[in-house]
Amino acid sequence: MAEPTPEQVADAPSGPTKSELKKRAKAAEKEKKAAEKAAKQQELAMQKAAAEEDFATEFYGPLPLNQSQSRPRRQYSQISTFSSRDGETVLFRARVQTSRAQGNKMVFLNLRQRTDSVQALVTVTPEKISKQMVKWTAGLADESIVLVQGVVRKTPELIKSASVGDVEVHLSQIHLVAGLDTRLPFSLDDASRGDAEVEAAETQFNKVLLDTRLNNRVLDLRTQTNQAVFKLQAARSTSPKLQGAATESGASVFKVSYFKGSAFLAQSPQLAKQMAIAADFERVYEIGPVFRAEDSNTHRHMTEFMGLDLEMTIEEHYHEVLELLDGLFLSIFKGLREKYKKEIDVVGKQFPAEEFKWREGPEGTLKLTFKEAVELLVEDGVSRDVLDDFSTENEKRLGRIVKAKYDTDYYIIDKFPMALRPFYTMADPDDPLLSNSYDFFMRGEEILSGAQRIHEPNLLAEKMRSKGVDPESMKGYIDGFRLGCAPHGGGGIGLERVLMLFLKLNNIRRASLFPRDPKRLEP
Amino acid sequence: MAEPTPEQVADAPSGPTKSELKKRAKAAEKEKKAAEKAAKQQELAMQKAAAEEDFATEFYGPLPLNQSQSRPRRQYSQISTFSSRDGETVLFRARVQTSRAQGNKMVFLNLRQRTDSVQALVTVTPEKISKQMVKWTAGLADESIVLVQGVVRKTPELIKSASVGDVEVHLSQIHLVAGLDTRLPFSLDDASRGDAEVEAAETQFNKVLLDTRLNNRVLDLRTQTNQAVFKLQAARSTSPKLQGAATESGASVFKVSYFKGSAFLAQSPQLAKQMAIAADFERVYEIGPVFRAEDSNTHRHMTEFMGLDLEMTIEEHYHEVLELLDGLFLSIFKGLREKYKKEIDVVGKQFPAEEFKWREGPEGTLKLTFKEAVELLVEDGVSRDVLDDFSTENEKRLGRIVKAKYDTDYYIIDKFPMALRPFYTMADPDDPLLSNSYDFFMRGEEILSGAQRIHEPNLLAEKMRSKGVDPESMKGYIDGFRLGCAPHGGGGIGLERVLMLFLKLNNIRRASLFPRDPKRLEP
Repeated sequence: MAEPTPEQVADAPSGPTKSELKKRAKAAEKEKKAAEKAAKQQELAMQKAAAEEDFATEFYGPLPLNQSQSRPRRQYSQISTFSSRDGETVLFRARVQTSRAQGNKMVFLNLRQRTDSVQALVTVTPEKISKQMVKWTAGLADESIVLVQGVVRKTPELIKSASVGDVEVHLSQIHLVAGLDTRLPFSLDDASRGDAEVEAAETQFNKVLLDTRLNNRVLDLRTQTNQAVFKLQAARSTSPKLQGAATESGASVFKVSYFKGSAFLAQSPQLAKQMAIAADFERVYEIGPVFRAEDSNTHRHMTEFMGLDLEMTIEEHYHEVLELLDGLFLSIFKGLREKYKKEIDVVGKQFPAEEFKWREGPEGTLKLTFKEAVELLVEDGVSRDVLDDFSTENEKRLGRIVKAKYDTDYYIIDKFPMALRPFYTMADPDDPLLSNSYDFFMRGEEILSGAQRIHEPNLLAEKMRSKGVDPESMKGYIDGFRLGCAPHGGGGIGLERVLMLFLKLNNIRRASLFPRDPKRLEP
Repeated sequence: MAEPTPEQVADAPSGPTKSELKKRAKAAEKEKKAAEKAAKQQELAMQKAAAEEDFATEFYGPLPLNQSQSRPRRQYSQISTFSSRDGETVLFRARVQTSRAQGNKMVFLNLRQRTDSVQALVTVTPEKISKQMVKWTAGLADESIVLVQGVVRKTPELIKSASVGDVEVHLSQIHLVAGLDTRLPFSLDDASRGDAEVEAAETQFNKVLLDTRLNNRVLDLRTQTNQAVFKLQAARSTSPKLQGAATESGASVFKVSYFKGSAFLAQSPQLAKQMAIAADFERVYEIGPVFRAEDSNTHRHMTEFMGLDLEMTIEEHYHEVLELLDGLFLSIFKGLREKYKKEIDVVGKQFPAEEFKWREGPEGTLKLTFKEAVELLVEDGVSRDVLDDFSTENEKRLGRIVKAKYDTDYYIIDKFPMALRPFYTMADPDDPLLSNSYDFFMRGEEILSGAQRIHEPNLLAEKMRSKGVDPESMKGYIDGFRLGCAPHGGGGIGLERVLMLFLKLNNIRRASLFPRDPKRLEP
């Protein structure tokens, strides 16, 4: 399946030309410099902040942009567990729901994770916490995402404003993960009140109307109420297929007559699932129809297919996503082999195939970088200069090479060139011509495409421009990140393709009950 | 949620007028006579057949149309269990894959259930089985559905043509449940062979091309290979949303630009799920988006919502479906209360509501007939002549009456008047003005609509005409039943509506991540 985006879809059929690749390389170079400059500035700010203080234990200020630079594998905590952890030091990421300074020596924070919140405080402490840290903390915008460390302490009285009210956290470190790039249309406190409470208080509280909420749904969905509602809804298949604007490229999107206007069919849940991440759902997936208006009649394309789309926040490194997806595939393969042996045998009688093979045991799934995959093909005699992208033919050839060398039908290719990926892909921290992205393969055909995404709105706009997309044309998409969004990544799987390749049915239509292609709309 | 069909949707906003109701009553009367005539003819045929024979133990011939006349609760068997049941008498429903007469005294049948098949035989036996019965059996069209009874016997040699090959069934009774109304475009035997076998045999076998298969997908899907493929696919969310023809009424269907032509968005998976039943999937469900082009901005309508649609074959009575759906709801309610107590409490703070109540224990869910529901409203002071249909207001009033009288927020209304239901609804066997259909309610709002469907193509065409629908305009739909279809029923649930009512959120948009209505397509 193609990465669920306009661009790549538009590119896929022909592949980029040499001159396009040059243009992209040039643009990437420019971005590299911009990113380096931004990183340098952040580093300087952090050094300056550190220099102003004498206390080695203290740390505060913005973290550099998470591009998966490192993976220290620290333990991150959930607020919901704090009641029983009196005295423990905890590290956790959370939203700042509110901050309230008390004089210039103390600041109280209400920190939130989904349906849980806890009070945290920062107090000036000789040789530990400076006035500057307190001041900086007090200045944090509501809804900023912070990474904090501190000690859990029992409180003498229950703190009513927090859902975990019998403890508070005395912070020793506070880092900004993602700030805000716009003003909040309403406060989460206002959005969290019931009508009765608002009406009883009359003018004291602002009522947030349903329409205002729906217009700013990313923010509205962060209330503990909505987090609870959609835990019940189980976040399954809930992204809308009807879209207001052809935010994705017109060429591959179906247009729908919508009352007196027009709508478009979503060609991936990409926007919706990233908005859900910006709304703090942390991990979302859906299994639902995906529509592609590509006039392609190959053995592996349909105009409507079942997508399994997944998106999740990452703590440290995008390989957290890659490993979760790998685990998902291994459990699908094992489940099919163990529970459906009879059915696989029945199918094998009509469609004889070598049994599907994957690597089990401690060595794990084979992972190659794009560069290593290219080397394998070059060794096999493919001319290097045609390998800027993989053609379907070379993908299959690679599948045969890998099978012969590693005895597996399933493998992952990591670190694709930036030029081959959509604008929202996060660049590699060391080489801006490479990206934090990956494809998964079965029997030499791609079945999943995914990546770490850019969660910083200005970098995203910059990338769009460099790829020739006007950021204004995707305003709603970028705006979703201006209210603060955690680092995240994901991927999309074409389910019929997985089944076709597992069983070697040779045509994707055989894996679809009632297939749809440019020539077939019935039965 | 409205029953997933054109008609009712078109009717719903205004409700049928008096003259329409009269017209319908007249048409129903006409149908009643036609059905009575057909039943009479069947009965006579059966009597005649019986009279020709002297043997009381024998039964063969067509069963009357299953309109859920009775529910003897017999035990029905699965072919897959027969290997270990030597000597037992079994009753089961199956397809006739092939029948082969040996002289005029014996006939061999290959009987199939999904991925399993077994050999059955009927032999002339003095005082038990007549020549007529053997002759009638030999004349059964391939792909007929039969209900048979017989004794399982071990075979000395493995029967290669059957998947359960170590036993055969000696039949004593055979009934036709559903015959064929057209010629088979290809045989299941031909459709089940691999390419290698066909090519090796050269002219001996007919090759069935993929396009021919897809054009006749209902038949093609019955092969053991395809039954196995879609067991692996788990039949989840696999019905197409893109439809070739506006087989449903244009008013409530969205039109899509499809390459050089047009397509339409499915306003329910009704057609697809019934085709899946005709293709022998026995029980299918899907959770997927449903699209309704209704220009309605109420608290409980959206243009796109999540439907849980279910369809299943019935052995004896449509209450088998009703009871399964009831069990589904009870397990949803219990699951929410047990696993999501914390979240329900969180939501309750912003949306205070009386806890949702349902009846547990041996008495079970409250079930009223439409007539009983009308009586309750009349007793409460509603004028009887406005109760031809329930208005939303009267539905809510009924909810309050039921809550006061029975202390439950959840109940079922059965036996709706035929005039209020779509053309494909099966009529009540005793009163053709009533139907084998039901709605489920939560807090006085409808959340599920369902029914037994007509599985007999000629009766279906007749019903269409009586409701003013040209059968030619839904040819593909009717043709699905001409290849033989088991009696079946189902229903459709609007999932956001269930959540809204369970939590009492008062507006369906609050139960949808990114709601869509005539005025909202973003975010």
